[in-house]
Amino acid sequence: MSLTSASPLDAAQAAKSASHVLATLSADARNDALTAIHGALSAARDDILAANARDLDLARQAAADGKLSQSLVSRLDLGKPGKWEDMLKGILDVRGLEDPVGRVTLRTKLDQGLDLERVTCPIGVLLIIFEARPEVIANIAALAIKSGNAAILKGGKESTESFIAISTVISSALDKTQVPNGAIQLVTTRDVIPQLLALNKYIDLVIPRGSNELVRYIKDNTKIPVLGHADGLCSVYLDSSADPELAATVIVDSKTNYPAACNSLETLLVQESALTTILPGVASALAAKGVELRADSASKAALSSVSGLNLADSTEQDYHTEFLSLTLAIKTVSGLSEAIAHINSHGSHHTDVIITSSKEDAETFMNAVDSAGVYHNASTRFADGTRYGFGTEVGISTNKIHSRGPVGLEGLMIYKYKIRGHGQVSAAYGEGEGKKRYLHERLL
Amino acid sequence: MSLTSASPLDAAQAAKSASHVLATLSADARNDALTAIHGALSAARDDILAANARDLDLARQAAADGKLSQSLVSRLDLGKPGKWEDMLKGILDVRGLEDPVGRVTLRTKLDQGLDLERVTCPIGVLLIIFEARPEVIANIAALAIKSGNAAILKGGKESTESFIAISTVISSALDKTQVPNGAIQLVTTRDVIPQLLALNKYIDLVIPRGSNELVRYIKDNTKIPVLGHADGLCSVYLDSSADPELAATVIVDSKTNYPAACNSLETLLVQESALTTILPGVASALAAKGVELRADSASKAALSSVSGLNLADSTEQDYHTEFLSLTLAIKTVSGLSEAIAHINSHGSHHTDVIITSSKEDAETFMNAVDSAGVYHNASTRFADGTRYGFGTEVGISTNKIHSRGPVGLEGLMIYKYKIRGHGQVSAAYGEGEGKKRYLHERLL
Repeated sequence: MSLTSASPLDAAQAAKSASHVLATLSADARNDALTAIHGALSAARDDILAANARDLDLARQAAADGKLSQSLVSRLDLGKPGKWEDMLKGILDVRGLEDPVGRVTLRTKLDQGLDLERVTCPIGVLLIIFEARPEVIANIAALAIKSGNAAILKGGKESTESFIAISTVISSALDKTQVPNGAIQLVTTRDVIPQLLALNKYIDLVIPRGSNELVRYIKDNTKIPVLGHADGLCSVYLDSSADPELAATVIVDSKTNYPAACNSLETLLVQESALTTILPGVASALAAKGVELRADSASKAALSSVSGLNLADSTEQDYHTEFLSLTLAIKTVSGLSEAIAHINSHGSHHTDVIITSSKEDAETFMNAVDSAGVYHNASTRFADGTRYGFGTEVGISTNKIHSRGPVGLEGLMIYKYKIRGHGQVSAAYGEGEGKKRYLHERLL
Repeated sequence: MSLTSASPLDAAQAAKSASHVLATLSADARNDALTAIHGALSAARDDILAANARDLDLARQAAADGKLSQSLVSRLDLGKPGKWEDMLKGILDVRGLEDPVGRVTLRTKLDQGLDLERVTCPIGVLLIIFEARPEVIANIAALAIKSGNAAILKGGKESTESFIAISTVISSALDKTQVPNGAIQLVTTRDVIPQLLALNKYIDLVIPRGSNELVRYIKDNTKIPVLGHADGLCSVYLDSSADPELAATVIVDSKTNYPAACNSLETLLVQESALTTILPGVASALAAKGVELRADSASKAALSSVSGLNLADSTEQDYHTEFLSLTLAIKTVSGLSEAIAHINSHGSHHTDVIITSSKEDAETFMNAVDSAGVYHNASTRFADGTRYGFGTEVGISTNKIHSRGPVGLEGLMIYKYKIRGHGQVSAAYGEGEGKKRYLHERLL
């Protein structure tokens, strides 16, 4: 591992070369590197937390001056109860995952002694750009090594001291392993992001971990594929056949369990015939959690007699807004088709839910809504790699190719085709006289 | 299907809307549409060939004036023996492929009554940009409909008449099916490519079918993911343990079977210790097929006593060149590691071959070379969807994400996660007291 103030180009070239070695290491060699990182970080706890305390001092000062948000300060803090332990446990969790490299996903006998295999392999070089959370460095280094990918890490300036401390420890730990020196590149110099984003010859995938603005900036400024999502505008469609109590429970969790999360509810679509039967109970339950409702005229009228609501008129813009707070837009729709059309045109293709007693309508909704997650009678908040059972996630993708939804180690893999032959040539096969026919016997 | 001279934006929006309907159609409905297209094209044979003859007249005139290559004229000709029949058979072949939509690729019981499924679904809207071959229209329309994707087709100006004739027939055939009107958009106006390439909000994937220049232009000018490859610089590494006869056979096929193809051999790397033992026989066999050899000093010296060769000095540029003709660059390397390093830095990550008797070296080569196809003792020319047994291919990808190598229907699919619940909420799960634990029981 190199802690480099070298040029982005040098870092990317070194990472590319290292990726070719890393791709050939055994699972044991990659797991041993994770063991070494875990041990070294454990031993260096005090030094790293001291470095983190220096970052925190500066950040608290900046927050006091109004230059930094309090939530960013909180995300910086590695000393928060459980955070350090979670970081270390995360490395062992990744080590314990099934090896994603070298899995045969297709095997075809093209002819006697001519065998085709499709085998999973690392993508190559990942560029990870993240903001505050310093524990992400250890997490991402572990994921990259486990998956056989080289990685270039670019951290936020608020966590510089923590970043250098953690990376120095990881660096010397890796020196004693088979993982090549350039496999994890750390870029600490400022203002290099535009240069890195131009290096599509060397960098195969960008994974941004941070604000919507960061992700959007990156998506708008690179030709390298970006894994992630800028927006999380999730919707629930409330059908008139829904169980009222179930509806209130699911909607309240979707909206209030963690309002700042990308998988939280932002728009509630209500079937016209449910306005006076189910919506009032849902609205009361939301109000009890402090949710402000922005309703269209029909839904507002239906809620006019319900007491204790924080109710306002919605604007068209509200249906395009990811509030990330205790505000919910409500819109009346005639039924299933209008709900599907609204979500496909207004949503961000992240996670959308139908609440209904009709299994048929649920299946129609789940087939027709063009989103990474489509749920029936369950909270939007289940959209998460850990909840899906993936062990870990590198992010949630709203891309339409490669990986979609919560992305685990599988999302860091591609494949190659191997053919093992005995001197066969293509000219020998075909339709003509004396030509051989392909067997195309699918073995896997 | 719309034959449109409407704006690219209108075409893209219409295709997006149609894609949402198309994604919900049954396999039968999609297959019925292919049957309808096949029948309508069969019935309209004479009209279409007459339109094609008009394109051909103009093209032959342009070729006579030196404004068009003879090979392009040849690719335009739908009347060539077997071409029309192949086009029609291709539609039925696609119809006969296994339905790629709705395959469950992961099933996990998150909890009692809370089930997660990963299900394949169409990507959405494909933009297909192709040059001469008019039969591609029918081929791509069939692939798009089979895979549940909407498609925007932009053909080359040389095939305009054929394009309009075929598309008019497909259009009226589809009017009698469940495939929505906007699912296949045909754009015939000129100079719209830059506008289409900017519509990343509506278009999910671009598939260019044409020259390297076309592909490179598209890759350089869009944020939409591009499926394809600009270059096909394939190499063979000839190890000194190789069987000489096998080596000559495989190398001659790789180079001469179809020199203009992307999967043809361009660079031969020869182990130093094979220069005088195996290379002379290989060189003679290549010379017998008319291949010009551009050799570095060591390999040139080794070949100096071989008669009948067309032998020249190589330049560094030759090792970066996709000749697409009967020219081969030869370079001497010390052994396996240098060969791997050369291929990873000079190749185009398409298809590369090792010829050796050492299974161990072959496995090392296949793991370390970062290409879509890595073969042992077999011709580069096997890199092809039909030869791999995929039934059809939309192209060969050198991308590092989504699809790599020959891409069949699978490459036009993505997936979504479905959860079927009974009102479960995320707040109920966790580590604390009274919290439920996820089961994460993997069922598939």
